[in-house]
Amino acid sequence: MYRSHSCGELRSSHITQEVTVSGWVQKSRDKGFMIWIDLRDRYGITQLIFDEERTSKAVFEKAKTLGREFVIQVKGTVIEREAKNAKIPTGDIEILVSELTLLNASLTPPFTIEDETDGGEDIRMKYRYLDIRRNPVKNSLIFRHKVSMEVRKYLSAQNFIEVETPYLIKSTPEGARDFVVPSRMNEGQFYALPQSPQTFKQLLMVGGMDKYFQIVKCFRDEDLRADRQPEFTQIDCEMAFVEQEDILNVFEGLTRHLLKEIKGIDVEKFPRMTYDHAMKTYGNDKPDIRFGMEFGELNEVAQHKEFGIFNSAELVVGIAVPGAATYTRKEIDKLVDWVKRPQVGALGMIYVKCNEDGTFKSSVDKFYDQEDLAKWAEKTGAKTGDLICVLSGNTNKVRAQLSALRMELATRLGLRNPAEFAPLWVMDFPLLELDEETGHYHAMHHPFTSPKPGQLELLDTNPGDVKANAYDLVLNGNEIGGGSIRIHDKEMQATMFKHLGFTEEEAKAQFGFLMDAFQYGAPPHGGLAFGLDRLVAILGGQETIRDFIAFPKNNSGRDVMIDAPAPIDAQQLKELSIKLDL
Amino acid sequence: MYRSHSCGELRSSHITQEVTVSGWVQKSRDKGFMIWIDLRDRYGITQLIFDEERTSKAVFEKAKTLGREFVIQVKGTVIEREAKNAKIPTGDIEILVSELTLLNASLTPPFTIEDETDGGEDIRMKYRYLDIRRNPVKNSLIFRHKVSMEVRKYLSAQNFIEVETPYLIKSTPEGARDFVVPSRMNEGQFYALPQSPQTFKQLLMVGGMDKYFQIVKCFRDEDLRADRQPEFTQIDCEMAFVEQEDILNVFEGLTRHLLKEIKGIDVEKFPRMTYDHAMKTYGNDKPDIRFGMEFGELNEVAQHKEFGIFNSAELVVGIAVPGAATYTRKEIDKLVDWVKRPQVGALGMIYVKCNEDGTFKSSVDKFYDQEDLAKWAEKTGAKTGDLICVLSGNTNKVRAQLSALRMELATRLGLRNPAEFAPLWVMDFPLLELDEETGHYHAMHHPFTSPKPGQLELLDTNPGDVKANAYDLVLNGNEIGGGSIRIHDKEMQATMFKHLGFTEEEAKAQFGFLMDAFQYGAPPHGGLAFGLDRLVAILGGQETIRDFIAFPKNNSGRDVMIDAPAPIDAQQLKELSIKLDL
Repeated sequence: MYRSHSCGELRSSHITQEVTVSGWVQKSRDKGFMIWIDLRDRYGITQLIFDEERTSKAVFEKAKTLGREFVIQVKGTVIEREAKNAKIPTGDIEILVSELTLLNASLTPPFTIEDETDGGEDIRMKYRYLDIRRNPVKNSLIFRHKVSMEVRKYLSAQNFIEVETPYLIKSTPEGARDFVVPSRMNEGQFYALPQSPQTFKQLLMVGGMDKYFQIVKCFRDEDLRADRQPEFTQIDCEMAFVEQEDILNVFEGLTRHLLKEIKGIDVEKFPRMTYDHAMKTYGNDKPDIRFGMEFGELNEVAQHKEFGIFNSAELVVGIAVPGAATYTRKEIDKLVDWVKRPQVGALGMIYVKCNEDGTFKSSVDKFYDQEDLAKWAEKTGAKTGDLICVLSGNTNKVRAQLSALRMELATRLGLRNPAEFAPLWVMDFPLLELDEETGHYHAMHHPFTSPKPGQLELLDTNPGDVKANAYDLVLNGNEIGGGSIRIHDKEMQATMFKHLGFTEEEAKAQFGFLMDAFQYGAPPHGGLAFGLDRLVAILGGQETIRDFIAFPKNNSGRDVMIDAPAPIDAQQLKELSIKLDL
Repeated sequence: MYRSHSCGELRSSHITQEVTVSGWVQKSRDKGFMIWIDLRDRYGITQLIFDEERTSKAVFEKAKTLGREFVIQVKGTVIEREAKNAKIPTGDIEILVSELTLLNASLTPPFTIEDETDGGEDIRMKYRYLDIRRNPVKNSLIFRHKVSMEVRKYLSAQNFIEVETPYLIKSTPEGARDFVVPSRMNEGQFYALPQSPQTFKQLLMVGGMDKYFQIVKCFRDEDLRADRQPEFTQIDCEMAFVEQEDILNVFEGLTRHLLKEIKGIDVEKFPRMTYDHAMKTYGNDKPDIRFGMEFGELNEVAQHKEFGIFNSAELVVGIAVPGAATYTRKEIDKLVDWVKRPQVGALGMIYVKCNEDGTFKSSVDKFYDQEDLAKWAEKTGAKTGDLICVLSGNTNKVRAQLSALRMELATRLGLRNPAEFAPLWVMDFPLLELDEETGHYHAMHHPFTSPKPGQLELLDTNPGDVKANAYDLVLNGNEIGGGSIRIHDKEMQATMFKHLGFTEEEAKAQFGFLMDAFQYGAPPHGGLAFGLDRLVAILGGQETIRDFIAFPKNNSGRDVMIDAPAPIDAQQLKELSIKLDL
């Protein structure tokens, strides 16, 4: 038996007991006549003491040779500690060691196994198995497990059935982003890995499964932005015989349950906002509503004056930055530089200081008098002491720019408190989205999303205006889930494919099985999928998902620890009936 | 709101209530003045009644048009049923319908949606979404969910953490059976889909995760035998600082928990048997011990007589088939034909009838007298009324043949009761297995399995004799789990790779990351993996795993519903830097 207790459980009540513990040497202090070792395992740290007088010479000498991260097993007696350590639960005791077994030695680790390590991202990823020993990573993985368990318990209790859908499926219209898998048994043919189990969960509804969920890996072969992964995990759900309201209630319930169970936080009924309102008010379909700084549109009060830039703009819009009227010229210049960075892309920024004395000082005083600026303050909700930042230009672009500025300023002002949770439903998304490059419309969510009742007719005339029965769950400025009521009618689905540019043959080749299924009594249904990686990171109060993934890939899609992907040998290629085409 | 109640929950206590239910038309009986419809959803069946007198004409006429599998919503009053049906929980009531909405029509389904369907395997798979509506499939999927939940609850309560390991990994030495995934971002390179998360779970142990589990999809591109799938699900587990006994206890506990919670069955402590004993006694490393018919080796008593076939055989071995002495000559001939089938491959079979009068009648009476045959009966444990079946030849082959015969006879005799559960640990597996084709040894479990203490030396001289710290959990003649204590020492792992025929370079290229990890304080560890598909099927009392998989593939690895795998287009191939080589 390697241990009678873990390194996290011994207390004063164990004093005088003979115990066996195993673990890693966290650190060792050798005072010549006495050696202390902090022994670590997943559950905690326990101090070992080796004492020239009380420990046998052989054991004492062996203890001297132990380095960091050596794996040892010790037997000994729990004794009271002279210098108690209130910071750790085992701080009242130590183990006076009588037997010591070296289970494995260790080279000096390439970075320190401490909460604050000296290792950079790259080296930590290469030695991820050592990184996982660190509390921040270890605890994130344990946290993820707890969240997953709570999700499963909650949904099971609500009669949802977790059904495993296949991983080896068929390439879809978003095929360009599919990972494919050559089939040895079916020469020249390929499986695809699912970008989501979308069609399968709909088929489960056709199959009468009624309430389905699955915590499931999904795959997307796209250029990886920071903090995306080629494989990611979804909490995927679908329900039959439901309206939008039913789905919102269930998953608001799930989210509230998680906040309560995991964070101990009670949240009010989630606010709801239309997509149009979110775009107008926050410039963004996933607004962070932990703070204000809502958009004030200024066209009415800022146009038709002498200022040409505003007059020619489609949209003039500003936000009031609380308490920022004291910004120096230099600080404001830096802000202007920030919005002009290519990542944001604004051409410039106009500002108005709302001075403590009730006057206004702006960068466009030449064109606007105090009365004009007072109207700007009113529209943006600015109070004395605030700084109004105003951008102008093409509506979509300027909204995105001002939204970026709003988030940046909120971060700088400490308004994005990771311990605060502000969920929000964003509803009534457009059904279609214009691809500005090709001029074609494509499905904003996916081709199975139903339009709002009575709007199908608009598809021919004003496709961009058609609203969908689609909704996103937003948490602290992140989309953590999204879904829709699906089309369940074969004719409507065919119409939708047509509008998305599929020929009848293409639709049949790709989705014939779904269209067929809709002929055999498909019930009304809808659902939602949460991004688990992101959800867990946000609940854990972190910005990045990587520490919540045991073995993440880097921005090139590589696992640097195992060095994958890698070439495969000629024989294997031959068996798969493919060759390289470099 | 589509429904106030499901089709499974209305009882006498609901009589007089106004309710709304939705579902599928299971069947319709039209008596002219009255129509009854059985409405079905996941939760049950509720009878609807439409009555010329009490139902509006419009609703009544519409009800006449409803066909099988139409999806409808009805409102009505719960009333007492005249002819109660005690077979279903809702059999005391029916709904007198006042409103009827057709939610979706249905073509006539290609097979009946009944427990006993008229659809064959192929058509059921093509329309799997209809097959899932049938109770046997639906209930199997729900059963699988329950088993998975219980596994997760049990292991979580024991401090196991579910960690998701990656699906896009690196090709392994069993590479020939890897599915591979070309990487778009890393031209000419490939990921592999995991055959198991073996190395990752070991790295989690090196990382101090201590107790890991995961219910996880695994992939193997091999020629599919009848009841295998290219993607399958494992309950994968690993523990650090454990000996074999610790692991057996935990997973015996898990299995006992499942039998108790899911089947309501209490099982004694699981018996244990060495691999050698299992092979000698049952000819098989996964014996079904629900019944006897243990092997009796007869060399001692059957050789050195005049019967040349036995004299030249490496092994002469028989079983006593209970009560089969009454088999006619024709029946026995059929049995002989059965063992001579190519799938079994015996050259012939000798029999001895143990007559009721205490005499013996054998097919080799020319060579053996009554006294000889009495010894055979003693060795095989045969009683009066039994039939002794004897095979001879090469030890391994004849054991496999007799094992097949034993299982076949047990099935015919009804000794394999699916409601009885006989778990068994088989232990002390050989470390290596001789590949008879190549003459090389390969790892019986995998290259990370540790040899029994002190046996490493045998590797050079008698590799086939080295026993491993490896164990299988067998249930009713099926291997449902297997595992081992792993090697955690870098040198020993290097030695093992060498003996398995890896060059140093190959070992480093494939498993450098694991060997590296072993240098940084790898703890002793071991684990086990259960095959979930099989486990669930056996717990569900079924022989085949297919009904416990929502969307299984056929024997050619095809999903006939979605028609995958399928060709992909030239552009996609080009982006992946591969071309076909047919």
